[in-house]
This record gives sequence, C-alpha cells and structure tokens, in this order.
Amino acid sequence: MKSEFVRILTNLGFTESKADQCAEIFALNSLEGVYSHGVNRFPKFVVNIKKGYVKPDSEPSVIKSVGALEQWNGNLGPGPLNALLATERAMELASQYGIGLVAMGNTNHWMRGGTYGWKATRKGFLFIGWTNTEANMPAWGAKDFRLGNNPLVFAVPYGNEAIVLDFAMSQFSYGKLETYQLEGKQLPYPGGFNNNGKLTASPAEIIETRRALPIGYWKGSGLSLLLDIIASVVSGGLSTFEISQKEAEYALSQIFIAVDLKNLSNQERIETTVNGILKNLKESDLIESATEIRYPGENVIKVREENLKNGIPVNKTVWETILAL
Amino acid sequence: MKSEFVRILTNLGFTESKADQCAEIFALNSLEGVYSHGVNRFPKFVVNIKKGYVKPDSEPSVIKSVGALEQWNGNLGPGPLNALLATERAMELASQYGIGLVAMGNTNHWMRGGTYGWKATRKGFLFIGWTNTEANMPAWGAKDFRLGNNPLVFAVPYGNEAIVLDFAMSQFSYGKLETYQLEGKQLPYPGGFNNNGKLTASPAEIIETRRALPIGYWKGSGLSLLLDIIASVVSGGLSTFEISQKEAEYALSQIFIAVDLKNLSNQERIETTVNGILKNLKESDLIESATEIRYPGENVIKVREENLKNGIPVNKTVWETILAL
Repeated sequence: MKSEFVRILTNLGFTESKADQCAEIFALNSLEGVYSHGVNRFPKFVVNIKKGYVKPDSEPSVIKSVGALEQWNGNLGPGPLNALLATERAMELASQYGIGLVAMGNTNHWMRGGTYGWKATRKGFLFIGWTNTEANMPAWGAKDFRLGNNPLVFAVPYGNEAIVLDFAMSQFSYGKLETYQLEGKQLPYPGGFNNNGKLTASPAEIIETRRALPIGYWKGSGLSLLLDIIASVVSGGLSTFEISQKEAEYALSQIFIAVDLKNLSNQERIETTVNGILKNLKESDLIESATEIRYPGENVIKVREENLKNGIPVNKTVWETILAL
Repeated sequence: MKSEFVRILTNLGFTESKADQCAEIFALNSLEGVYSHGVNRFPKFVVNIKKGYVKPDSEPSVIKSVGALEQWNGNLGPGPLNALLATERAMELASQYGIGLVAMGNTNHWMRGGTYGWKATRKGFLFIGWTNTEANMPAWGAKDFRLGNNPLVFAVPYGNEAIVLDFAMSQFSYGKLETYQLEGKQLPYPGGFNNNGKLTASPAEIIETRRALPIGYWKGSGLSLLLDIIASVVSGGLSTFEISQKEAEYALSQIFIAVDLKNLSNQERIETTVNGILKNLKESDLIESATEIRYPGENVIKVREENLKNGIPVNKTVWETILAL
C-alpha cells in the first residue's frame, strides 16, 4: 500500500523523502483501522493536490516565536506533513520549556488527528491538538451549518502504547451516517434532528435535514465554537466561517500542544498513576450488553495487530481507483 | 452578601485579605447567576473548613519549575484562592514564554471554573483549565461511578467581556436533575439511562439508576478519563480513583493554561476575527423554538446586569443558614 502511495505522490511532485513520509501516514492510518482518513481518503487528497489546494513542495514557515509558543504559516503544504512538523516542533519546545504550543494557520486537512497523538506519545510526550474545518454542523438551536466538527485529540503515553482520544464535535460523521443508511440500520443512539425537530436515530432523516447532533447537545456546539476561535486567533489563520467562504476546504487553522513528561518531578510515578486509573476503570460494573470497558485507543492496538497479520482490508473500488492514479 | 462571607471566613481563621478574596469569588459567582457554586455552596465550603479538608492558612508551594510549566502543591488550601493564584501564575509564565501551564495537585474544589476564565480574559489572556473530581459518573458501558464530571473551561477575551465555556462531562448535574424532579418536569433531552438500560429524560429514573449520561455518549466518557489522567499526571496529584477512596472530596488535581494574546503577530486582527465568527453564528437560520443563538458566557453578562440592578436572588433557607454561621 505504501509503495503505491509513494509512486503516486512522487509523480505529483513530492520529493522522495516527503512522498515516503506522507505515504507512511496514509498507510499507518489504514493499518490502524482509520480507513476513512487513510486509504479511502487518498484519492481525494490527490484531487486536492491536482486542484492546487495542497501544494506538494510547500513547507511551513515561522511567523512569530514567543519562547514556548510559535505561530506558523503552513503555506498550504500537505496537511499530514505540516502537522507532523508542527508536532515535532511542539515537542522540541516542550523539551526546552516544559510545554510547547505550535499554532499553524494556512495549512491543510491533517487526515487523522490521532496520528500526531501517537507520534508524540511514542517519544514520551503528552499531546493535545485540534483543527478547525469548514462548516458542517449547525449550532445548537440552528438549522444551517455555521460550525465545524473540529476534531480534538488528547494523548498520553501508556507503556509502549498510548491512550489516544480523537473525536469530532458532531456525534456521528456523515460518512458514518451513510454507512448505517447503506446497511439499512438505525444509529445506536440519537444522532441528529428530523424534520419535526425531534431527536432521531434514523440516518436517512439526519442526512435529509443536515442537522447532525453536536456531542452533548449545546455543550459540543459551544466547544466547537471555542476550538475554532482559539485555533484561528492563536495561529492568525482562517476561521471556520472564513474557510467556508472558499470553493473547497483548505487553509485550515490547527493547534499542537506537547508536554514533556521527562521533566516532571513525579516521572517515576506516572506509570503507576495511569495503571491505577485504568485498572479501576476496567473493574467497572458492566451493563448487560457490555463485555468490557475500553479506553480510547485500545481498539487501535487490536486492529493494528490484526491487520499486520492478515493485511489491511481495502474496498476493491477504492483500490482500483488508487492503482489507476 | 460579600460582607457576610467575610465575617464568617474571618472567624474561621482566614486573614483579612484572604477572607476578602474568597468572599469576592463566592459573591461574584452568585452575582453572575452561578448560585450552585456561589451562595448555595457556601455552607458546604464552611463544613469542609471545619472538618479540616480545606485549610484556611495553607498556601500553595512550587514543586518543580520547568520554564513555562510549573508543578504546584495546593497544600489543601481554599480551592478558589489556590485556583486564583494558579491562574495568575500561568498568566505570568505566558507573559514570559507565550504560554504558561500551572498544574496543581492536592488542592480543593475551585467552585465555578468560569471564574478563572473570566479573570484571565480581563487581562488579555486566553485560558484553558480543568479540574478532576470524585467519581460521580459511570464510564460508557458501566453502571457504577468510576469517572468524574471533571469541568473544563475555555475562555477568550471579547471586547470588554469574554466568551467563556465552562462545562462538566455529565450532560446534567445531579443538582439540575433534582431541580427538574422538584418541579415535576421532564428534562428537555435524554440525560441518562433507566432501569431497562434505555435513554430517558425522566430525572427520577436517572436519580434512581445513578446512570447520568456523559456528553456525547462514549466521547464524553473518554474525555473525562483523559482530563483526569492529564490533571493527575502533570500535577503529580491524585486521580479521580484515588480521590474517591477518601472520606470526602478533597485533594483534587487541576490544570491552568494561559496564552498571552499581546505576544501574537496578529494581535491587531484578533478582534476582527472573533467579531466575524460571532456575527456569522448569530446569523444562523434558527429552528422554530429558538429566538437567538447565544455564545457561551453571553447569558452571564445579562444575569450580572439584572442582579446588579435588582440584587442577587437568594433562597431564604440558604441565607438564614449563612446568617447563623
């Protein structure tokens, strides 16, 4: 899979090293089960390069450095490469100052936010990051899209692996709604509003009204707003409102925060603390339909193992599209 | 109201200056409509002082300083005073390094998280902070309490006021559930599970099962977990699990992050960016039952004005209890 991606990216003008790094991210996202932001999204990534929204040879540049905080211009480079650089720079700042924040405007879709959480935790850093998006969710009390689903990532090292929470502000993505609809299934829980303004678990009704539910009703609506304001204010880049006035979703604003755990006074006790929390969580009294309580990211480890053993499952049409690129 | 609080706190051993600061926070929280963490909570705060969980004469001390990040021990001092000091220290660090993070363990209930967001924004800082709590919410898929509702605050300056989001990880607090139950009302939206494991909007059913809903179902469950892990790991303090083994809720772990907007390259454009985002939000196409879209914190300004004009409404029994302290 990776070599196909490398071939295509090289043909599109990526240097050998950048093609390798970028292909690695798309392949790894697929290996870890996030197909929607791995192999399935690759053809759209190529379209965005061909249309000039993503510039293969662009590199981010520093706008302003204020000690532990830096503002960067992504110069419309490939989102995953820009995000990787921002994460690494945030880690460098954190090594020096305890915490580091890189805010990057004028960048592109980072694909899977968890990628950068896993990357930072492998080197012993705690990671918090988020991105804004084009408007794709109505505010609480509204019908039309004015907010983004603005994925937010929290990640903490855990043994050789990590606890990685990577979630969007809408309860279900449109991709997920369409999957349920295709399978003729109802959502497991209400995921939006129908034409009568009632909560519904019918994917078809939500796709019709376009009124996907923010997580926590009014709370996720507020959180989406604040993430967008902070990302655009601190990076100096575009807000969801401004991005949505463009002909396509590009020139996003993102935040990357790293904390170096090696600097903490309690570094010897961190593993014990996290083990204690997870052990207690796992001992929960389960509801009838549950078999275990999983922590965020736990499933990634299982899927990675399965896919390493059996190969990455790929939709035939998607793969044929990629081979023809 | 404030002078009554000062009288009581002084009798409990607070210095004049600390009694004044602490009374100010309780009175301001009430003035701004957050009675549950203002006047209504004051008697419980006094109980916790008398039981020795909150130590009036304790002051926080630095454990470790790593440039822009500092670990502090709250030494079980009064939560609001400790949180105020941590916020101010995070702002000092942010002035120097662009961003500042103060992690404080062994501290106490900060009452209303928004207090510190409003405080920081008045001086031109952006604020992110959270606290852990004792276990009061089941994990997704569980019946018993293993997670805290861990309030999270995001705040950004906006003109002379601020946009302040202050929310807990449970959809409705038990205080809110009890209010609806007393009024014989259903919740406006599902807020937990009943005995059959179904989502319900009946406050009585949720109070019975103790299965309050995390915001965004599994997402809020994961977010609560990560906030607790980060607060306890970075402060070196206790986790929700450890706090819950105590005889009462004390010795909490909290995170205070400030960003100094004066340092940013785009500081001249920040107001325009935020105005643009809010103007666009306000122009949303409303659902039938809505009269406007409010941003987080907007209602605080209205309530403050009303209460400044008409006085702070206080429950008679609560006030008599306070007068008798």
